[in-house]
Amino acid sequence: MDGNKPSRADVARAAGVAESTVSRALNDSSLISPAIKDKVRRTAEALGYRPSRQAANFARGRTGTLGLVVPRYTSFPPFSRAYFPTLLDGVVLAAEERGFLVTIVLDKAETTGDRLAEMVAGRSVDGFLFAVSPAKYDRYNCLKRSGVPFALINNYHKGFASVDARPEPGMRDAFGHAWGLRHRRVGYITGDLAYKNGVDRLETFRRLSAEFGMYPSEVEGNFSRTSGYEGAIRLLAGPRKSRPTVIMTASDRAAIGVIGACDDLGMRVPEDVSIIGYDDLHPARDISPQLSTVHNPIEESGKEAATLLIELIGKERRKAAAKWLDTSFVARESTSYAGV
Amino acid sequence: MDGNKPSRADVARAAGVAESTVSRALNDSSLISPAIKDKVRRTAEALGYRPSRQAANFARGRTGTLGLVVPRYTSFPPFSRAYFPTLLDGVVLAAEERGFLVTIVLDKAETTGDRLAEMVAGRSVDGFLFAVSPAKYDRYNCLKRSGVPFALINNYHKGFASVDARPEPGMRDAFGHAWGLRHRRVGYITGDLAYKNGVDRLETFRRLSAEFGMYPSEVEGNFSRTSGYEGAIRLLAGPRKSRPTVIMTASDRAAIGVIGACDDLGMRVPEDVSIIGYDDLHPARDISPQLSTVHNPIEESGKEAATLLIELIGKERRKAAAKWLDTSFVARESTSYAGV
Repeated sequence: MDGNKPSRADVARAAGVAESTVSRALNDSSLISPAIKDKVRRTAEALGYRPSRQAANFARGRTGTLGLVVPRYTSFPPFSRAYFPTLLDGVVLAAEERGFLVTIVLDKAETTGDRLAEMVAGRSVDGFLFAVSPAKYDRYNCLKRSGVPFALINNYHKGFASVDARPEPGMRDAFGHAWGLRHRRVGYITGDLAYKNGVDRLETFRRLSAEFGMYPSEVEGNFSRTSGYEGAIRLLAGPRKSRPTVIMTASDRAAIGVIGACDDLGMRVPEDVSIIGYDDLHPARDISPQLSTVHNPIEESGKEAATLLIELIGKERRKAAAKWLDTSFVARESTSYAGV
Repeated sequence: MDGNKPSRADVARAAGVAESTVSRALNDSSLISPAIKDKVRRTAEALGYRPSRQAANFARGRTGTLGLVVPRYTSFPPFSRAYFPTLLDGVVLAAEERGFLVTIVLDKAETTGDRLAEMVAGRSVDGFLFAVSPAKYDRYNCLKRSGVPFALINNYHKGFASVDARPEPGMRDAFGHAWGLRHRRVGYITGDLAYKNGVDRLETFRRLSAEFGMYPSEVEGNFSRTSGYEGAIRLLAGPRKSRPTVIMTASDRAAIGVIGACDDLGMRVPEDVSIIGYDDLHPARDISPQLSTVHNPIEESGKEAATLLIELIGKERRKAAAKWLDTSFVARESTSYAGV
C-alpha cells in the first residue's frame, strides 16, 4: 500500500514471520524470543524498511504519546467550550510534526499525581500537558518528584515548565481603544480567582485603569456566560451618569453573557454600552455584534507547550522553562464612541 | 494521596522497590526480572492494592486506548469545526466509563491500513474509530484482514462495524414543518457526494419532496459554508414566482452560508426565505436568526461507536454490527410562513 517502499508485510514475508511479529520484534516486545528479534531486525535492515516515527519512538523506550489533561466538568462535556478544541488543535499539530500522538486524559478527583505517574510507568504516555489548572500545586510536585515530564498551559509556577500569554499587551491596546472612543468609566467582570489567569487579568485591569485615569468598577465572576450576564446586570444598575460606558470581561463567554444582559435591559451594543471580551475564540466572530476582544494565542500556546514537553521527554531540554507569549487586541463591532 | 486506599507508593515501600518498578512489574514489563515481578505481585495482593483500570487493561494485554482517526485538512485545524469536538466528547466520555483512553490519530496520505495495523501491533492503541470517511474502503478491508478492531462513524459498509444516524425521521419532520408553513417550492444544497452521508441526505430529500408534492430544485455543494453561500445565490437567482421559498442544506455550516447570501441579496431570513440546516451543532444556536435544523445525534454516535469498539476489542462482541440512531427536527427562528 505504500508504493515502492518496503512494507511491514515485505519484512514479514522475507523473515518468514507474521506481520504482528515484525512490529513486536522491532518494538522489543517481551512476547518475542531474542532469536526471532535478531532475525527480524536483520531482515528489516537488509530491505531498508523504516518503521513509522511512532514505532521508532516506541523502540527508543518511549510511547511517543503526550497526555493532554483536560477538566471533567459535571455540567457540560469537555470539548463543548471553544477553548479546548482550539488548544487541542495546537497540541495535536505540533505533536504530529515531531511524530508524537496525543491522548486525552480526563481530570477527575482520582487523577492524582500517583495515578498520572503510573500512566507513564505503564507506558500509556511519556508526559503530560495540563490545560487550565487551578493554582494548587501538590499534584505537580508529586509528578516532579517522580521525574515525570509535564508542562502547564495558561498557568505557571516556579520550577515547572509552562506556557502562558501575558495579558498586558492586549489589554493595554484594549484600554487605548476604549480611551480613544472617549470611554472614561470602565466596568470589569473578573474571571475565576482560583486561577492565576483570573488574578493576573484583574491585576492588569487595575493597573491599566489607574494608568489611563479611568474610573473602574469591578464585580467578581468566573469566566462563565452566566457570570457575565449577572455581572453586567449589577454594573449597569446604577444611574446613567455613574455607570460604566464600556464593560471588559476575562473571557469571551462572559462577554456573550453581557450582550444578553444588555438585550434584556433594552440597551443597545455598542450604541449604549461597549463590550470588550478576552480570548478571541470562534464564537467571538460568530455572534452579532462581533466581539471586540483581547486575542489570547491559545492554539499557539498548545503548540509551544507540546514542543516544550517533547523536548523535556527527549532530554533535549533539561530545565523546566516558563514560556511567555503575547496577547493582542482585535477591534470588531461591540465597541463604539461612549454614549454619554 | 488516595486517602486510605493503599497506593503504588505503599506497595513500593513494602516490597522494597522503586514506584516505577511496581507499575512495570504489574504491567509485566520485560525490564523487570521474574523474581521481582513475583514479589511485587504478592505484595500488591497482600496490601489489597488495585491498580487503575488502565493498568488493568494493560495487564490484560491491551493498551486500554482507542484511536480516533480524524481528517487532517490543509486549510483549517482538525477541531476548528464543531462536528469534531462534539464527536470527541461522545467518544471520550463513553471510553472513560469503560476505563479506556482516547488517542487522536490524524488521517493523512501516509495513514494506510498497514500503518494503522502497525500502531495496534506496536501497542499504541487497541483499535480505531473513523470519523467522516469518504466511501472508499481499501483501507478498512486491509484492517479487517489484519484482524484490527475498528468502527466507522457517520458512514457504513457491509461487513464493517458502524454507527450512523438515519436522515429520514428528522428530514420528514422538517418537510412537515415547511409544508405546514405553506412552503411549496423547496431548494436543496447537497453535501459532498463522495460521502455516503451526502448521498443519503440527497436521496431522502428527493423522496420526501416527491412524497410531500413540493417542487424541488437542487444545487451541488460540499457541506462547507462557501458552498452554502454559492448554492443560495444560484437557487435565489430566478424570478420570484419560481424560486424556492425554503432552502434546505446538508449541514449547518452550509445553512450559515445561505444566511450570508440572503444578507448580501437583501433578503430577510425568515420573512423572505426560510432556511433549514442539518446537524444542530453549537453554532446553530449561537447565530442570529437561530437555525431551524435537523438534529444529528453526533455526541451520541461517538458514544455508541466507542462502546461498540470496546466490545469488539474485548471480544464481548464477535460480529461487526451496523448501529443506526435517529435524527429529529428542531424548529427555531430561521423558518416562518412562505412569503408568496
